[in-house]
Amino acid sequence: MSDPLQIGLLIFPKVTQLDFTGPLQVFSAVPGAKVHLIWKRIEPVPTDSVMVLTPTMTFADCPQLDVICVPGGAGTNDMVGDEEMLAFLRKQAAGAKYVTSVCTGSLVLGAAGLLKGYRATTHWSAIDFLAGFGAIPTRTRVCVDRNRFTGGGVTAGIDFALTLVSELVDRKAAEAIQLGIEYNPAPPFNAGSPDTAPAEILALVKDRIAPSQTRRTEKMNRAAANLAQTG
Amino acid sequence: MSDPLQIGLLIFPKVTQLDFTGPLQVFSAVPGAKVHLIWKRIEPVPTDSVMVLTPTMTFADCPQLDVICVPGGAGTNDMVGDEEMLAFLRKQAAGAKYVTSVCTGSLVLGAAGLLKGYRATTHWSAIDFLAGFGAIPTRTRVCVDRNRFTGGGVTAGIDFALTLVSELVDRKAAEAIQLGIEYNPAPPFNAGSPDTAPAEILALVKDRIAPSQTRRTEKMNRAAANLAQTG
Repeated sequence: MSDPLQIGLLIFPKVTQLDFTGPLQVFSAVPGAKVHLIWKRIEPVPTDSVMVLTPTMTFADCPQLDVICVPGGAGTNDMVGDEEMLAFLRKQAAGAKYVTSVCTGSLVLGAAGLLKGYRATTHWSAIDFLAGFGAIPTRTRVCVDRNRFTGGGVTAGIDFALTLVSELVDRKAAEAIQLGIEYNPAPPFNAGSPDTAPAEILALVKDRIAPSQTRRTEKMNRAAANLAQTG
Repeated sequence: MSDPLQIGLLIFPKVTQLDFTGPLQVFSAVPGAKVHLIWKRIEPVPTDSVMVLTPTMTFADCPQLDVICVPGGAGTNDMVGDEEMLAFLRKQAAGAKYVTSVCTGSLVLGAAGLLKGYRATTHWSAIDFLAGFGAIPTRTRVCVDRNRFTGGGVTAGIDFALTLVSELVDRKAAEAIQLGIEYNPAPPFNAGSPDTAPAEILALVKDRIAPSQTRRTEKMNRAAANLAQTG
């Protein structure tokens, strides 16, 4: 790997900010690592919240990354059809030590053809889209298949990042970071997964996301068709 | 409370970004809430990582908040002695429904005199500083005393925010958000608290933070002395 270790988190309009701010907190504590927030250009990038981001690195200037990580969010609907993004991921992935994602970021890796034949996970609401990209959908919080590390929805990014650091450096490094961020979670409720949430809550959330699921299905089907033609 | 509900997260130089990006993700999903990132001026605010923030609201223009939340980080060393910050917090706290913090943000609330006689928590490494501000140190992940909600270190912000949403709105709203962010944590190691971390890891982290603890002690003692004189 490079010295310093080069870790790149992609950002893009309508990224779900906690998908990458969780891993960013973990990766920033890796001794000697250089962390980048990467987008096409240096310009303000709106997230899913009021927070607007400033990229630190462009596609064109980005050094070869050791770790490339794609977060998720509504913006992945556009990213799966964005040839500039997909070409950047393919080029970087060829030389990267680890190719990773959090949440629906795995759909973008999938659209780039980078998950063919790999087990992968994503947000619970998007798991059915992985097969269209030739991935093997796997419902675990963190999924590791060779050098592909994919995390589940949003907050799974913290578990994913600690798992990756234990590989990148060692277990002690990951444990020291975990203690530093006091990651000793105690959710006040037990609704964090479709398997544990009350049926009423699951129905409510599914109902709320139904319109966006329809849009997402259309975009993912198109991206899967494009991949099938080209790849 | 206001309509819309006004939720303000303070930001400042060297804020620990996950202290507020966790709550930001949760609060942004509260139906009808207006969320602000607040600083003295609209200017780039550097965090503890490469991420630079853009405030959305200034102290001068800020409406009365229903929820005021102070995150932590190395920058709290300066904030506990920053009269402009402390005056803003006192003024807002007088009319706010909830006065809250994550991590060492509680030290800033303390320096503003807002935790006198209240039970409160903070990052495990900073718990000894609370008493100097007249607070009653309480080692829980989320501490609720009347309208003061304080969270423990960094990642406790997610547990804190879900707890607060269950009060602000109701339990169903909090559970729906928890499912949306798939907050079903599965830490790969059990080192997230001084009580569970291997002794070797605790010693390593304590050793690493020793120089910053010395600086912090000096700043907190001075802030506590100031509060004793004025308040």
